[in-house]
Formats: sequence, structure tokens, C-alpha cells
Amino acid sequence: MIAEKLLRESNKHKGVCVGLDTDLKYIPDYIMSKDVSLSEKVFEFNKLIIDAVCDEVACFKVQIAYYESLGLEGLSAYSRTLKYLASKEKISIADIKRGDIAATAEKYAEAHFSGEFEADYVTLNAYMGEDAISPFYSYFQTGAKGAFVLVKTSNPSGVDIQNIEVNHEYVYQLMAKNVAKWGAQFVDDSGFSSIGAVIGLTYPDEIKRIKPLMPNTFFLIPGYGAQGGTGKDLAQLFSEGICGVVNSSRGIIAAHVKKGLEVGFEEESRKAVLAMKEDIGKWL
Amino acid sequence: MIAEKLLRESNKHKGVCVGLDTDLKYIPDYIMSKDVSLSEKVFEFNKLIIDAVCDEVACFKVQIAYYESLGLEGLSAYSRTLKYLASKEKISIADIKRGDIAATAEKYAEAHFSGEFEADYVTLNAYMGEDAISPFYSYFQTGAKGAFVLVKTSNPSGVDIQNIEVNHEYVYQLMAKNVAKWGAQFVDDSGFSSIGAVIGLTYPDEIKRIKPLMPNTFFLIPGYGAQGGTGKDLAQLFSEGICGVVNSSRGIIAAHVKKGLEVGFEEESRKAVLAMKEDIGKWL
Repeated sequence: MIAEKLLRESNKHKGVCVGLDTDLKYIPDYIMSKDVSLSEKVFEFNKLIIDAVCDEVACFKVQIAYYESLGLEGLSAYSRTLKYLASKEKISIADIKRGDIAATAEKYAEAHFSGEFEADYVTLNAYMGEDAISPFYSYFQTGAKGAFVLVKTSNPSGVDIQNIEVNHEYVYQLMAKNVAKWGAQFVDDSGFSSIGAVIGLTYPDEIKRIKPLMPNTFFLIPGYGAQGGTGKDLAQLFSEGICGVVNSSRGIIAAHVKKGLEVGFEEESRKAVLAMKEDIGKWL
Repeated sequence: MIAEKLLRESNKHKGVCVGLDTDLKYIPDYIMSKDVSLSEKVFEFNKLIIDAVCDEVACFKVQIAYYESLGLEGLSAYSRTLKYLASKEKISIADIKRGDIAATAEKYAEAHFSGEFEADYVTLNAYMGEDAISPFYSYFQTGAKGAFVLVKTSNPSGVDIQNIEVNHEYVYQLMAKNVAKWGAQFVDDSGFSSIGAVIGLTYPDEIKRIKPLMPNTFFLIPGYGAQGGTGKDLAQLFSEGICGVVNSSRGIIAAHVKKGLEVGFEEESRKAVLAMKEDIGKWL
């Protein structure tokens, strides 16, 4: 089952998830100047990073917006990246944040759980309610696929809707209860459901408040590094029994940019992964 | 300005928006059996429908999920369809329901307001708050682009989150106020903002309740036909001064399927558009 596999990988690698939010500006000139397609250039960058870090991380999150912005060539690189992760037997999370209903949502499920864009996990938005999630259930039933539903996001204006207060509860807590309810039917032997939740590391207190509402939920936790979340925050959550993977994107794949390096970006990404694991580990 | 243009087109054509939710099962065998790429087949189907109805409709909505499910070939057809609509000077609404933040949302804006996937309007999901919308503002400022933000959707489980009650108000009403507030800076001479709202026709009473909260908002109204909304419902909304376009997808582009027809699907789509306009017109 997918949740069990992710839990195992997470325990092995301190929950580290590498975000492949590949912006062209991170790709060194020596790759960009090659006489190959844009898809090839983007994929080469990703592949070198994957090769450099994959024995040290729990999973990879691929943010589709970066690839969509490059059109068909970008989406070709997206497809190749997911296939490469599958060939290395690494868990892929397609960060697509899709949210639609009925036949349309079935098409999204087909798009991202089979064919050229097949991933192990997707991220979903449930503003439209369970109808946005249920078309994915048949894939969860196979045990091979899972999703993370947005509950409490790490950005400042996340409060606009998520922190509307209803009888001493916030909308994000009601969302948490819904997600737990929908996921109850997909809990595997590890005790975790194929339906996980996205909760930003920038709100560690809110994660603690959410946890009792979602006892069988595995978390995808963005917000480490660039967005302000620390290894100490994360280690505290882990020590309280909260299970999840924590994503870092720029901090890993653009580690070379800060140093002004071109050649050797993949070694820099590996160093950044090891530093992140040390930062989390020292508080555990 | 885009809202002014859409209002003019809507007034001319009784608000009719044709949804190009192109499922392969709607495409006749005589096209599917051609020795051309899948992109070419899907595009040929769309092109014949666009040619058959474009002088009778306000705009087209292209549901990207259908194209994503066909991988790169599907997205190539999606791109060609948007470019063809632009060449015919018809307004395109990219039904993408994207919702992400910061640099990621900027990438979505770039993806869908420029380059291969350029459309006039996009649909957006603001569960993540204004951060999911503001990266699109620079495009709204040009006057050439607009968005429809999900407020109250037409599906049964839309109530899960949208109808949570807060001090005698629903979450969708709070969302409506937020969308109106964000859109206030983009109101053009027509009195309408570049930021519109999605509200399902299946809830006409709720649309009336929302209207006073959003005096400068143009609506995208799904739910006509297959989902239960009627011409009478819509005409009543129009007569109360609610401005918007109403989308029909299957009812138009799959009109031939019900009749078991293959050849001549484009004439059937035109007949369906004319029947829809008559259905709305007789109540006006």
C-alpha cells in the first residue's frame, strides 16, 4: 500500500521530500546552451539532481505549474521526470492541486494516475467538496495511489477562507474532519490512509490542533526553509507522533544559485539535502 | 477591456457559452480512423464545432482536464483549439480551476495567459486566499485578461465547505465578498470587473442572494441542461439584472451522440445552440 511505503521511506530519511520546482533560471548555461530540445534540458537538470539525492530522500514532489509555463516542451520534461522517478522506484507526488467534479475530475484522475503523467500521489483542492475527491477513490482502492488534500496552507492569505471562524472552530478544522472522514475507508496496515493532508510547516501550532481530528492521516508539509519553517519545528511535530514528509524546493535545487555556481549543482543539491537532514536530526 | 467585450458578446447571444469538454467518445469514427495524430483528430472535431456555432455564441469554455487526460497529444489539441478561437476573435475561457500561491501561481499565470496555452479568461480556486489570485493581477491590469473565481459550485457536495454557516452567513457568501473586494480595482467602463465569479445555475436562489454582495461581478454559470438548470432559471436571473454567461458542454458538443449520428455532428451542435437560445429567449 502506498501510505505504508511512504511512511517507511519517510522514517528512513527524516521525512525529506525534494521539490522539483524547476525554473529555467536554475539551469546552468552549460545545459541551456546545448543543441537539444527544451524538454531535454529541463529533464537533464532534474535527472542529475535525482541521481545525486535519491538515496538520501523519502520522495520527490514535482510542481506541475513550472512545467505548464513552458508549454508542451515543459510538460514533456514533466512526463520524463515522473517516468524516471518510477524507474528509480522513488515515490512521486504530483503537485497539481486540481479540484473539479464528476466526469471532469475523472479525467484529472486518469491524467495523473495513468499514462504520460502518471504519479504515485497527487495534491487536490476540495473547495468543491467530496465530489472533487471521490472520482479518485477507485485508484486509492488499488493500494497503489494516494492524494494529499489541502487543509491549512503555508501562505499568509491562507487565512482568508481557511481561518473563517465557525462556532469556535476554523474552516480548516472542518476541512480536516472532512478529509479524515473521506480517508477512513482507505486506511492500510500502517494505520495511515491513502488520503493525506497538506498543512504548512509555518503553522506548527495549528498542525498540533489538527492532528487529533485526523488520527490516520499522513501529512505533506511544505514551508521548510525559504518559507520560514525550521528543522526544530518539524522535529517537534515528529516527536509528538505527527507523521509526514516535509518539502523543500528552492533550498535544494537552487542551492548552487546562491553560491554563484554552475558546474556541480547536483553536488550542491546533495549537500543541501544532507544539511536539511542534519538540521532536523539534531532536534530529534 | 475584457469584461466589456464579454458583456457585449453575452448580450448579443443570450449569454450562451459552449463548453469544449471534448471526450474521445464524442468524436465520430470517420475522424478517429484517420491516419493522423490524436492532436489532429481532437482539434478537427473542435474546429468543426467552432466553425458551426461561433456566429451564434458569446464565448467558448475549454475544460483542460479532458485534454490533460490525453497527455501531450491532448494538450497539443488544447493549444491549437485556443489559438483557433483567438484567430476567430472569439473569447476563450480556460477552465483550469488552478489555485496555488507565490512563484507557483505566477507560473500558472504565465502558462495560461501567454505562450502555447494562452486564453482570455481562466477559472481559479481561492481556497488558498488572495495569494492564489494576486499573481494574476498584472495581467488583469492590461485589460486583456480576466478570471472567474469559484464561489458557489453546481455539484451536490459543493455544500461540504461552501455551505458551512458562520453567523447566519455561508462560506460561499464570505468568498463572494472576498472576490468582489479583490476585483474592485479592475472594474472597467462597463461597470464590471475583470475578476468574475463561478456560480452554478442549479442554485438560482443563491445567485440572487450573492448578487448584492458582488454588484460589479460578471458570472460564469455552469449547470444548464445536463446538470438541471433551465432557460427559465437563467432568464429570471437576467431579468433581475444578473449578468453572466451560461455554459453548456455535453448538451451542445454531444448532441449527435444521443441521436446516434456520426456524420453531421457539427450541424447538430448548431441546432443545440439555437434550441438553447430559444429556450432562454422565450422567458425573457
